[in-house]
Amino acid sequence: MQFHHHGYVSGDPRVRDAEGTGVDRPLDLPEEMDLLIVGSGPAGMLLAAQMSQFPAVTTRIIERREGRLRLGQADGIQPRSVETFQAFGFAERIVAEAYNIAYMNFWGPDPQDPARIVRTARTEDYALKISEFPHLIVNQARVLDYFAESARHGPGRIVPDYGVEFLGLQVHEEGEYPVEVRVRHLVGERAGEERTVRAKYVAGGDGARSGVRDAIGRVHVGGASQHAWGVMDVLVNTDFPDWRTKCAINARAGNILHIPREGGYLSRMYIDLGEVAEDDNHRVRATSIEDIIERANAILHPYTIEVKQVAWHSVYEVGHRVTDKFDDVAEGESRSPRVFLMGDACHTHSAKAGQGMNVSMQDAFNLGWKLGYVLAGLSPESLLATYSAERLPVAQQLIDFDREWSSLMARKPEEITDPSDLATFYLGTAEFPSGFMTQYGPSMIEADGRHQALADGFPIGKRFKSVQVVRVCDGNAIHLGHHARADGRWRLYAFADAAPAGAESALAAWARAMSRPESALRRFTPQGADVDAILDVKVIYQQGYEEVDLGAVPELFLPRTGPLALTDWEKVYAAAPNAWSHADIFAERGIDRSGVVVVVRPDQYVAAILPLTATEELEAFLGQFLRAGAAG
Amino acid sequence: MQFHHHGYVSGDPRVRDAEGTGVDRPLDLPEEMDLLIVGSGPAGMLLAAQMSQFPAVTTRIIERREGRLRLGQADGIQPRSVETFQAFGFAERIVAEAYNIAYMNFWGPDPQDPARIVRTARTEDYALKISEFPHLIVNQARVLDYFAESARHGPGRIVPDYGVEFLGLQVHEEGEYPVEVRVRHLVGERAGEERTVRAKYVAGGDGARSGVRDAIGRVHVGGASQHAWGVMDVLVNTDFPDWRTKCAINARAGNILHIPREGGYLSRMYIDLGEVAEDDNHRVRATSIEDIIERANAILHPYTIEVKQVAWHSVYEVGHRVTDKFDDVAEGESRSPRVFLMGDACHTHSAKAGQGMNVSMQDAFNLGWKLGYVLAGLSPESLLATYSAERLPVAQQLIDFDREWSSLMARKPEEITDPSDLATFYLGTAEFPSGFMTQYGPSMIEADGRHQALADGFPIGKRFKSVQVVRVCDGNAIHLGHHARADGRWRLYAFADAAPAGAESALAAWARAMSRPESALRRFTPQGADVDAILDVKVIYQQGYEEVDLGAVPELFLPRTGPLALTDWEKVYAAAPNAWSHADIFAERGIDRSGVVVVVRPDQYVAAILPLTATEELEAFLGQFLRAGAAG
Ligand SMILES: Cc1cc2nc3c(=O)[nH]c(=O)nc-3n(C[C@H](O)[C@H](O)[C@H](O)COP(=O)(O)OP(=O)(O)OC[C@H]3O[C@@H](n4cnc5c(N)ncnc54)[C@H](O)[C@@H]3O)c2cc1C
Ligand SMILES: Cc1cc2nc3c(=O)[nH]c(=O)nc-3n(C[C@H](O)[C@H](O)[C@H](O)COP(=O)(O)OP(=O)(O)OC[C@H]3O[C@@H](n4cnc5c(N)ncnc54)[C@H](O)[C@@H]3O)c2cc1C
Repeated sequence: MQFHHHGYVSGDPRVRDAEGTGVDRPLDLPEEMDLLIVGSGPAGMLLAAQMSQFPAVTTRIIERREGRLRLGQADGIQPRSVETFQAFGFAERIVAEAYNIAYMNFWGPDPQDPARIVRTARTEDYALKISEFPHLIVNQARVLDYFAESARHGPGRIVPDYGVEFLGLQVHEEGEYPVEVRVRHLVGERAGEERTVRAKYVAGGDGARSGVRDAIGRVHVGGASQHAWGVMDVLVNTDFPDWRTKCAINARAGNILHIPREGGYLSRMYIDLGEVAEDDNHRVRATSIEDIIERANAILHPYTIEVKQVAWHSVYEVGHRVTDKFDDVAEGESRSPRVFLMGDACHTHSAKAGQGMNVSMQDAFNLGWKLGYVLAGLSPESLLATYSAERLPVAQQLIDFDREWSSLMARKPEEITDPSDLATFYLGTAEFPSGFMTQYGPSMIEADGRHQALADGFPIGKRFKSVQVVRVCDGNAIHLGHHARADGRWRLYAFADAAPAGAESALAAWARAMSRPESALRRFTPQGADVDAILDVKVIYQQGYEEVDLGAVPELFLPRTGPLALTDWEKVYAAAPNAWSHADIFAERGIDRSGVVVVVRPDQYVAAILPLTATEELEAFLGQFLRAGAAG
Repeated sequence: MQFHHHGYVSGDPRVRDAEGTGVDRPLDLPEEMDLLIVGSGPAGMLLAAQMSQFPAVTTRIIERREGRLRLGQADGIQPRSVETFQAFGFAERIVAEAYNIAYMNFWGPDPQDPARIVRTARTEDYALKISEFPHLIVNQARVLDYFAESARHGPGRIVPDYGVEFLGLQVHEEGEYPVEVRVRHLVGERAGEERTVRAKYVAGGDGARSGVRDAIGRVHVGGASQHAWGVMDVLVNTDFPDWRTKCAINARAGNILHIPREGGYLSRMYIDLGEVAEDDNHRVRATSIEDIIERANAILHPYTIEVKQVAWHSVYEVGHRVTDKFDDVAEGESRSPRVFLMGDACHTHSAKAGQGMNVSMQDAFNLGWKLGYVLAGLSPESLLATYSAERLPVAQQLIDFDREWSSLMARKPEEITDPSDLATFYLGTAEFPSGFMTQYGPSMIEADGRHQALADGFPIGKRFKSVQVVRVCDGNAIHLGHHARADGRWRLYAFADAAPAGAESALAAWARAMSRPESALRRFTPQGADVDAILDVKVIYQQGYEEVDLGAVPELFLPRTGPLALTDWEKVYAAAPNAWSHADIFAERGIDRSGVVVVVRPDQYVAAILPLTATEELEAFLGQFLRAGAAG
């Protein structure tokens, strides 16, 4: 965590100074704004937190609810989400508070007496095998609280406008604020009042029954059939020994997905209520909590639960659906999008794979910086078309995975030939539910694979997978990727060739090239801004940290920034292990020892890999989406 | 973190429900209170946070300052303090925010040219070699903020009364509130008003010039000489390559202790101003910041610092002094103490060893639960005499260490024969500055060593050094010691003999004995309270977690507690490593495999070690300080 950088900070360093539109931010929803976010679910709240890092942009977020979410909805947090929380500054807190999944157990009918269940497999959770982040279970409300804090404490000081409902919108062809939005105030002095406000862009994170989706005429495509689950968050006493372990229970009497929750006592049970006929008209929702509990007890036989408190319950009906496009531009039309869909507004799927909240957050992480760059004048509008292009295939992939997983889970015992099927599928596909399978294809912000071989372990289009390195200034082992916060900046990691700091080398030549006044770094950085305001350049030497002489490191890597023009000491790293670090990032990620530049997007995806010598190619790549000489 | 235990918690689980005196706690300082804490430094604030866990007790804390501390004072946090922060629930947050010390470097005169300094040694910091907690540097103000939060969010809802000055006190021989305290309001409506309030006990954490100390006639003993330091927290640009590494710099021109601070930019420098003559009359304090900076530059030669901002500076004069006794009872007098001294009020020493704030907090951690138990009627008053008896020797030991360390550091270069002296002393004594050397002697709360051999790795009287174990209910690897929060409870760790759960064994017999109505556990637990309200019993089996059948574990270890009588699943552990844990606590701590009970105090010190068979001895030990049949 870096601070004191603009002068001494006495209080909580997580509370940043207000800047730009964050200074004197009006309490009331204004008439005009750059970005209007609809809905404060995981997608909307992440987007708000991200936009708070772009205080030049006026962002508002409206939410129908009168205040924070209190109960229910999703609770499964995949490692990719925890990685994202790290970037937003609250991973360590939510990990301390959440249930950490260590195992998933499988239960099935006892072959001796199929009316009883027995444990058929224990599987170690995949998260810590493929990531440095755990797999968590925690109330969606708490995730939203943390993002709300991040939005409120960022320079943009963004706070949701609760009790404001989206009614409809119209995109005009002209004008500075072309999106006209109708809203209704539900609370406060203005309760009941309908208003029209105007925005440059609208992001619809308004959930499965999205009004924004309807307003732009998008179609939610997918099977008509819905799957229904009885869901309950309960405090119970029980003799079921795996009450505190995640379990898939597949009994003659039905199926349960059992999920222990944060705090050591609460658990969530998903009791399968099966496919819902098209003409059911939500009759399934009438299923009472007593019925759900009775069903749970039948499935758990010979074990029983005695329910002491029902914190929340619901019948959750969901179909596999994906919206045909995630913005308001028709296929073939050439204008840039003005309205975007995120999260459940554009894809829904079962709760079984625990993906809903996670994928929704990644939608917003993908969209946020793009809106920030375009609205701040740093990037051309055409950047915005990459949002739908990148996220739609991810949603489609998710639906496919979920369909397979759900149908495996929904099998009747007599359909199961190999009881370890489920466990095998679960582990074999672990990268997917962890959130690490997403790979974006070539585009204006994703280079092709021509130099991929220079750094095999950083697949272009996948998220930058961190490794420990040693910070030269103080010898601390730190995760290179964790230094990159969700502050909207691009990262350029210069992995040095073998020569030490001070010697002539490809790295030294790269640093000179990047330091020229006409270099990419200078041209794409707005007038008057810090040299690392947009492109945050770091160097990783192959040597041990003791061998890197800070006095001989090019100034590019020790820039002086901020109002006091203070040296930033945290851009110079060493790869060779020391007493506190055990990895060599060059070896771990197959980085060519003749030197490589890895370009990483603000949402942590690897955008390009280049040899140190290819400074013109780097410049050309950056020029595809960055504007030279922006006003700043 | 356990919660939802009294029903579902939707918000931040760190904010506990108010209880007892925490419900409707008056904003104004009342006329009468159980405990009055004077001073909101590290000692006072830790005590407030601890007392917030005893909501039956009315605790107030007065502080002369008008609000929170903003700047300066101590910043070195030893691993024992981070361990303590873990118990108070904020370790992960402060670690994320602080500077983590990885190395300490030593600089001395260049033998070729003694006017210049050169690096003479790099030493790896000791913390992570002897503890799972790091060695941190962070503003004292932030430590106080975290304790303030903990006090405010605990059931007692304790908030300091800022702007109230202690003037004097008198201890009467009779009455329910025998301590009469004179205070003056400095702010608010009552500003200027002097009042008399009454307390059962007073804890003086009012710093080096303690008025409480004077009021009880205690004498601050020690050399008359003071040592003076110019201290500055500065933002600079410099070519000194170790600016972000902790360094001891020993130059011809003088000595510097250099300490990088949190946030990546700030550093603190202690510039030695030498011993102050008795007749100096604080003239040394007139040393200007310009002089201090000039001196620093002279010492750093050939490197220079260009100071961009001075966040704080001070001339800090301190002598080696210990108060003759830490309470108001004269040697030989038989009554129980009413007034206690903590922290700088009873011991001062140089800043060099970075101990001040740390030892002060441990004073308060030692005192807090004792006051809580006596005031709640759980323990006899005689318990309070152990405070001074235990902490005075610690202070004396600290002074001795500090004197040696300071004089080593203060040597002139020509006095130094072996330049690695300092580094050797520093590492050789690492357990001391880490805060782990403290060992309390036998007393009513510390058993003698007769059974020590049963668990060599848990020396009686030293703090319980945690090891990872596997939580049986969910297979998570967790630190056994970290489950024990600063909630005022005693821990009884029952390390099982070799038989598995369910089989007849010494453990099973122990559990039966402890479950009898006339057992220690029942007798010392107040009427109507949860069975683990005072004595928190946990079991550690030798087997792997998969082999421990929760259905066969004695009910003692799966108690039903809270208003809903919910099973607590987090008291049963397994020692054999699994996929996530690599230690076997029996092997790591030399625990006898025929089974052992380890008794640990609320402040985390090992109080007794017993064989499983010695239930009467255990009962007798607990009976020395716990009252049977307390009201609850
Ligand atoms: C009742 C319910 C139960 C669920 N249960 C589970 C579960 O058990 N497991 C699981 O994995 N997932 C569950 N989900 C799905 C999961 O919560 C979502 O996948 C996830 O929340 C998607 O995030 P989002 O930000 O896209 O949308 P949401 O979290 O749905 O957020 C949409 C927000 O928009 C607001 N909104 C909607 N319309 C308007 C409007 N017109 N004007 C203003 N605001 C509006 C809503 O109030 C809401 O706060 C559940 C969802 C719901 C609604
Ligand atoms: C100016 C200063 C600089 C220091 N610099 C360093 C340093 O550089 N390095 C280092 O390691 N240690 C330093 N220390 C020492 C370190 O801060 C202490 O060891 C540590 O704070 C001790 O904690 P404490 O709780 O015992 O007392 P303190 O932190 O001193 O707290 C005492 C509190 O009591 C309050 N108080 C005092 N008298 C009254 C009264 N009559 N009524 C009400 N309230 C009262 C004070 O305002 C203060 O908040 C410094 C201390 C001071 C005062």
